[in-house]
Amino acid sequence: MEVIEAIFTRRSIRRYKDKPVADEQIKTILEAAMMAPSAGNAQPWQFIICRNKESLSRIKDINPYAAMAEQSSLGILVCGDLSLEKFAGFWVQDCSAAVQNILLAAHGLGLGSVWTGIHPIKEREDGFKKLFRLPQQVIPLAYVVIGHPDQDLKSPGRFKPERVHYDKW
Amino acid sequence: MEVIEAIFTRRSIRRYKDKPVADEQIKTILEAAMMAPSAGNAQPWQFIICRNKESLSRIKDINPYAAMAEQSSLGILVCGDLSLEKFAGFWVQDCSAAVQNILLAAHGLGLGSVWTGIHPIKEREDGFKKLFRLPQQVIPLAYVVIGHPDQDLKSPGRFKPERVHYDKW
Repeated sequence: MEVIEAIFTRRSIRRYKDKPVADEQIKTILEAAMMAPSAGNAQPWQFIICRNKESLSRIKDINPYAAMAEQSSLGILVCGDLSLEKFAGFWVQDCSAAVQNILLAAHGLGLGSVWTGIHPIKEREDGFKKLFRLPQQVIPLAYVVIGHPDQDLKSPGRFKPERVHYDKW
Repeated sequence: MEVIEAIFTRRSIRRYKDKPVADEQIKTILEAAMMAPSAGNAQPWQFIICRNKESLSRIKDINPYAAMAEQSSLGILVCGDLSLEKFAGFWVQDCSAAVQNILLAAHGLGLGSVWTGIHPIKEREDGFKKLFRLPQQVIPLAYVVIGHPDQDLKSPGRFKPERVHYDKW
């Protein structure tokens, strides 16, 4: 799928078929995540591959907006590792770029995904830290649900000309 | 260009040819930016198209790492608009996803780009706010330099298996 088309047609998928994501696809998605740019090229990220059914069933208790995790076969918890930062405070942007690469790579592979937010909501951070036994310096940014889509969503078109300003506000 | 290939081959470009970016390409890049996902679909972003030579020459004084702005013909200042947020604190992630779409769309169009960081460095925020006369609730996140690349960088490969954890840390 062409990159511009992929950007324009990607949607948040919340219904999944009961079919696993292949290991090779997971590898491609992780490689894509790690190709994101980062401040000082610090690459301050860590990824937890979540496929354990017991864990997936507990995510809805941490974030009800991520309840579809239970119906999916795969999730990737994208975390910032503060011990890897070169320029303090940029890890959120670096890891967000990695998440966007994950969403687009999954879409390019014919998979669906949805970005569910964690940071900066403290209770969600604590819940995911506990569930996946993260060390103190590793902060969960987002939980990305991934799977074979069981819904077909059209591209909405989101261009808003009033959000574009020329040479000054 | 295929989306996975685009993700894998995109590099930060810091040398540009003296040739303008077409209006149609700018439109495609902005459409791509606004197709990013956002918390609650709030789309809390604003974009300043920077082509004024006088402004471009002043950016290096705000951020020396963005000195290449002066040699480029185009920049996009990506800003979060706090008045548009639905879930407080997620604007950085939303706008970072938009930046990543900008970088990938530019690459897909044969253009080069580089993400130069602003937020959360207060002096840079203040410098860009003043230069582009941003209202109080609009926070500059990143200045993206865009142009016709005058360097050809190979894909480095950044996959680090030690950053991947299975089912728990």
